[in-house]
Amino acid sequence: MSLHVFDAALQLQPQAEGVYLGATSPAWANMVGPFGGMTAATVVQAIVSHAQCLGEPVSLTVNYLAAIADGAFTLQLRIARTNRSTQHWVFDIRQTDAQGQSQCVLTGTAMTAARRDTWSANDLTMPEVPAPHTLPETTISPSVVWITRYEMRGIAGGMPQVWNGCESALPLHEASLSQLWVRDKVGRALDFAALAATADIFFPRVWLRRAHWTPAGTVSMTVYFHANSAQLAQVGSGYVLAQARGQIFHNGFFDQSGCLWSEAGVPLATTHQLVYFKE
Amino acid sequence: MSLHVFDAALQLQPQAEGVYLGATSPAWANMVGPFGGMTAATVVQAIVSHAQCLGEPVSLTVNYLAAIADGAFTLQLRIARTNRSTQHWVFDIRQTDAQGQSQCVLTGTAMTAARRDTWSANDLTMPEVPAPHTLPETTISPSVVWITRYEMRGIAGGMPQVWNGCESALPLHEASLSQLWVRDKVGRALDFAALAATADIFFPRVWLRRAHWTPAGTVSMTVYFHANSAQLAQVGSGYVLAQARGQIFHNGFFDQSGCLWSEAGVPLATTHQLVYFKE
Repeated sequence: MSLHVFDAALQLQPQAEGVYLGATSPAWANMVGPFGGMTAATVVQAIVSHAQCLGEPVSLTVNYLAAIADGAFTLQLRIARTNRSTQHWVFDIRQTDAQGQSQCVLTGTAMTAARRDTWSANDLTMPEVPAPHTLPETTISPSVVWITRYEMRGIAGGMPQVWNGCESALPLHEASLSQLWVRDKVGRALDFAALAATADIFFPRVWLRRAHWTPAGTVSMTVYFHANSAQLAQVGSGYVLAQARGQIFHNGFFDQSGCLWSEAGVPLATTHQLVYFKE
Repeated sequence: MSLHVFDAALQLQPQAEGVYLGATSPAWANMVGPFGGMTAATVVQAIVSHAQCLGEPVSLTVNYLAAIADGAFTLQLRIARTNRSTQHWVFDIRQTDAQGQSQCVLTGTAMTAARRDTWSANDLTMPEVPAPHTLPETTISPSVVWITRYEMRGIAGGMPQVWNGCESALPLHEASLSQLWVRDKVGRALDFAALAATADIFFPRVWLRRAHWTPAGTVSMTVYFHANSAQLAQVGSGYVLAQARGQIFHNGFFDQSGCLWSEAGVPLATTHQLVYFKE
């Protein structure tokens, strides 16, 4: 049986203690280089697969320093500290440039933890939205390959149909809001790596807000994982409700705040990004 | 003229390329170790003071791996990559433990950028709140020293007056919401370091949400700086409106989402935290 394209892209070859060789996958190509979510997923998978990993992912920050070139990359992953119930990770990804120089293309940190049962509450309740089967599948001209890996059913804030440069007339808290149901196209079950990837599926809020195309790309993404592996297993190959909204757009950067819920309303992750935009 | 206590705590002694010796300040003591915001500020100040720093802070993530002990610490700061208009930083803080071993107590990443004027918009408008001078100064029994460094004028979601364990009866989006005006007690002007510190002034949302005291502490904080130094200079020693709200509380960790505005309504920073809580 061949590996799912997601799992194939996650494959790393250990080179030395904490050093792994990987390669970008054409199946996950973005406009330039690979889908950033796939790169984040690769790091998460390396962490959860690590022999000394304590617990499960709780926090992740990845910084995209430059477009990752198609081809080989080296992931360096290090445990910065192991406490009784938490563990902190530091990592980077490097590539060799055309001049033969090793260049850093990604940095980041993560925390894993062995969680205990405590009082819990969900103050970010899932919005009331139509069920996935009542919505048509979003048909996007597949300008980038990775989008075709997902089944998306849009609820609000889809890609502009007309790029007329008219700013959204919606109230500000809805002007850059997107909501969609999303799942892997061929039924690959949700896990921490897939959840990290899903946190990055939103197209740039500035496009939605302005109906104006401008070069844009994530420079930093943080994911807080709220669900544990048992809860992710319950989602399986089901839909995830993905929501993101832009907050402040200022002089070349905007931030967004998002959340991912299971169809049953379980909050899986909250996520934030800082995104570059050109004009 | 003696240094302001904030500036005194920011002092670092360069030891070697990218290696600085610092010390915690009793003036910024928290229950255990120093106020985390002060530590974040120290890193930001080291970055903006660095001879090779490109532009101004845009993104910061700090992870608190363990309580920082009172006394000396070593900051290691490295430029991971310099692009045409952006620069990425990696850092950690280490301390020598009782056994003479060097231990990592903080990790993090940051990005600075030379911003250009672009289309800008503020979708996270400042809530309508009473002006600072119409509100009494919050008088807190100074259980921790650092709180006395700030003048705070609470608007909503102050520290519970009765710790009766009754969960908030407010709607969920207000149940763990705090809003306050805050400024340096003795008029130290706002800059990037001070803004980073201010992003961490919120007491644990779980206390507010439950009126129940439980050990809690920030494990990861991200700050997206939206204002530039000229805008911060305009704030000067004026008030900042600080708002934070808890999102998901689950098995030992909760996250919060916050924003800081100037009194004139300029969005200065958005900020997120993942916070540990014991029960």
